[in-house]
Amino acid sequence: MITTLFLTASGHDEHARILLAFAFVLVGAKLFGAVVERLGQPAVLGELLFGILLGNLALLGGPSLAALEASETFAILAELGAILLLFEVGLESTPKDMMAVGLPATLVAVVGVVTPMVLGYGVDQLMHGQDSWMAHAFVGAMLAATSVGITARVLQGAKAIKTPSARIILGAAVIDDVLGLVVLAIIAGVIKAAAAGTTLDAMGIAAIMVKAFAFLFGAIAIGSFLSPRIFRHALAIRSTGVVQALSLSLCFGLAWLAMQAGLAGIVGAFAAGLVLEDVHFEDHVKRGEKPLHESLHSITALLVPIFFVRMGMLVHVDNFLKPGVMGFAVLLTVAAMIGKWACGLAAPRGVSRVTVALGMMPRGEVGLIFAGIGASLMIQGHAVVSPETYAAAVFMVVVTTMATPPLLLWSLKRDGAAAPS
Amino acid sequence: MITTLFLTASGHDEHARILLAFAFVLVGAKLFGAVVERLGQPAVLGELLFGILLGNLALLGGPSLAALEASETFAILAELGAILLLFEVGLESTPKDMMAVGLPATLVAVVGVVTPMVLGYGVDQLMHGQDSWMAHAFVGAMLAATSVGITARVLQGAKAIKTPSARIILGAAVIDDVLGLVVLAIIAGVIKAAAAGTTLDAMGIAAIMVKAFAFLFGAIAIGSFLSPRIFRHALAIRSTGVVQALSLSLCFGLAWLAMQAGLAGIVGAFAAGLVLEDVHFEDHVKRGEKPLHESLHSITALLVPIFFVRMGMLVHVDNFLKPGVMGFAVLLTVAAMIGKWACGLAAPRGVSRVTVALGMMPRGEVGLIFAGIGASLMIQGHAVVSPETYAAAVFMVVVTTMATPPLLLWSLKRDGAAAPS
Repeated sequence: MITTLFLTASGHDEHARILLAFAFVLVGAKLFGAVVERLGQPAVLGELLFGILLGNLALLGGPSLAALEASETFAILAELGAILLLFEVGLESTPKDMMAVGLPATLVAVVGVVTPMVLGYGVDQLMHGQDSWMAHAFVGAMLAATSVGITARVLQGAKAIKTPSARIILGAAVIDDVLGLVVLAIIAGVIKAAAAGTTLDAMGIAAIMVKAFAFLFGAIAIGSFLSPRIFRHALAIRSTGVVQALSLSLCFGLAWLAMQAGLAGIVGAFAAGLVLEDVHFEDHVKRGEKPLHESLHSITALLVPIFFVRMGMLVHVDNFLKPGVMGFAVLLTVAAMIGKWACGLAAPRGVSRVTVALGMMPRGEVGLIFAGIGASLMIQGHAVVSPETYAAAVFMVVVTTMATPPLLLWSLKRDGAAAPS
Repeated sequence: MITTLFLTASGHDEHARILLAFAFVLVGAKLFGAVVERLGQPAVLGELLFGILLGNLALLGGPSLAALEASETFAILAELGAILLLFEVGLESTPKDMMAVGLPATLVAVVGVVTPMVLGYGVDQLMHGQDSWMAHAFVGAMLAATSVGITARVLQGAKAIKTPSARIILGAAVIDDVLGLVVLAIIAGVIKAAAAGTTLDAMGIAAIMVKAFAFLFGAIAIGSFLSPRIFRHALAIRSTGVVQALSLSLCFGLAWLAMQAGLAGIVGAFAAGLVLEDVHFEDHVKRGEKPLHESLHSITALLVPIFFVRMGMLVHVDNFLKPGVMGFAVLLTVAAMIGKWACGLAAPRGVSRVTVALGMMPRGEVGLIFAGIGASLMIQGHAVVSPETYAAAVFMVVVTTMATPPLLLWSLKRDGAAAPS
């Protein structure tokens, strides 16, 4: 049946509400994003803060937007935003980049995943001792993934993107993403097995790990072989929009395949992004069509703010008033910071250890996606990531992100690597 | 609650299905579109045919996609496509263009709306005499709106876009859209009143008409006054993506407002498109950002094919085997053609009447949107547009669209207006 979007006269109708929410969220996210950008912060922080404001309007005497928060369509559009975001993250690197980062960056990445996980586990065990070890492990995993976009922007602004420290940070962040996704697959697998009443032994965990790596490397190997060939034929059609349609199909198709393999959809989207390279579309750009990242950007500019605003809306700030929550949030943030500072110790000689430590610090979109996944997973009838833990996780993301630009700039100046501004 | 998109392992899960459907629909629509473009037809026909194929796979021994057809999310995404499509149609003209088309084009437009409506009403009364007069009127309204995109592309290809005939056709098509939307508002209002158990008298109909015109002209007048001022301030923010976010917000916001006024959402989206003009964003393009129609196009390239594929899926071809349906489809198509040929008689002197008649002939996206709305409206428990009538309407759209390019090219050559190819 065709729904009644076009004709409905009721303001309470789901479809009309979605249109209004779209209008409102886009303008608000843009305004808040622009203001925090003025303050030298990334736009995503403004979008998140706008979401927190929207989700807590009732506390300020405003209307409750609980209906919007509960809307399935709003949720799906936000999730499409997350899928496309990870696709964009993947597009920024190639399999060759991943191979080329070498041992030093891999070592930094491994330290930057293991240390925060251990510290996060410890903090959660200390504060929420009654919870299962699986919940502790999940909280640890939320601290694993560096959000390199913020660091990259600072490095670029300071004209320090070509320094050895920058190369280590950017390389480690790519490996970091892969390791984080695999860790997520393992912990989610363990939790789902527990929810189904079975426990996973070491063999079961190894099986998930093998499946995750096999999917990622299989998708990348097969995709890298096939995609230039498919795109070469597709471009022979000489129809506008072929590259966009095929690339998005690859993204959605691999996301679906990842889900069929029991992994997160974002793993597939990330693999799709890694596989695609600009060289596949050179002819297409020569013909005067827009390069993929540009046409993709218009779509992500629409859907990604919806994701971040929604993530903000899910933070109910009254949780911070509950006993222990603020303390937990602060401890989690400290664990997240110290955990990534440990990366500096793993940095090779000739590289500024302080810069590497601070550059790995910001946690952003991937941490938020992990927190959202945790909120949807259940152990014994409780969400793995409770509303309180979710609020603390967002606090951690906001603080680590906001603290990075000034600290990193200070360190770059200390290194003598920053261009005089 | 955050839904389980990221982690689901089940292939039957709604979210995984949407991702797969997205992947499949995008590639299929693009391929079919490219093939029919090779044959000199517009891509939308290919998308529609791909949808018809998908919706009737079961007849060919394939799997049934009824679950996809029934998916609420797929429906909403398709409807966002329709909203954005009408926004794009509106963007192609400005209020000034509308004022400037003058009396001759207005006369052509009025004839081109009234004649097909009368003929469509007659055909439906002849074939479905048992139905209400409101159903007949709705079938007539489906024939009203010219899809000028197809004609414009042919005129452009033949380098005849600056001829007097072309100016009359393009001007009339704009007025045509407005009249069609108002007719839709009136008929839908009558049907909704009937469904609520009341009948609208002449006064009630006049009230709807006044409301529709008041909304359109009010939105255009206020919007034309405010939008340059708002955009001037917004551009002062100098944040990338401001124009896209604000424009889409205006589109969704006016669509919502139209729905609150009891009109179709597409009326608001069209008005939003009319109001926005490139001059508002000149500074923004000078700063190196993409012009609005380009960034918008990446989004419509994603969502509009979903709309057309879905419209095709709703055609169940076995309806054509039912007695009378094929005959009705043919009669409706003839009524649609003759109805628009009457425009030629209203064309002013010095203009090729045959070219105007043929140029006004194609019915496309707007006719399909009307048919979809009719399928969602109920009179006495029956859809105003039954599955059989819906199938016939799509037949009419396909035939009038396919017949236009060759006939129009022939007429342009006869006029001596076409550039030698």
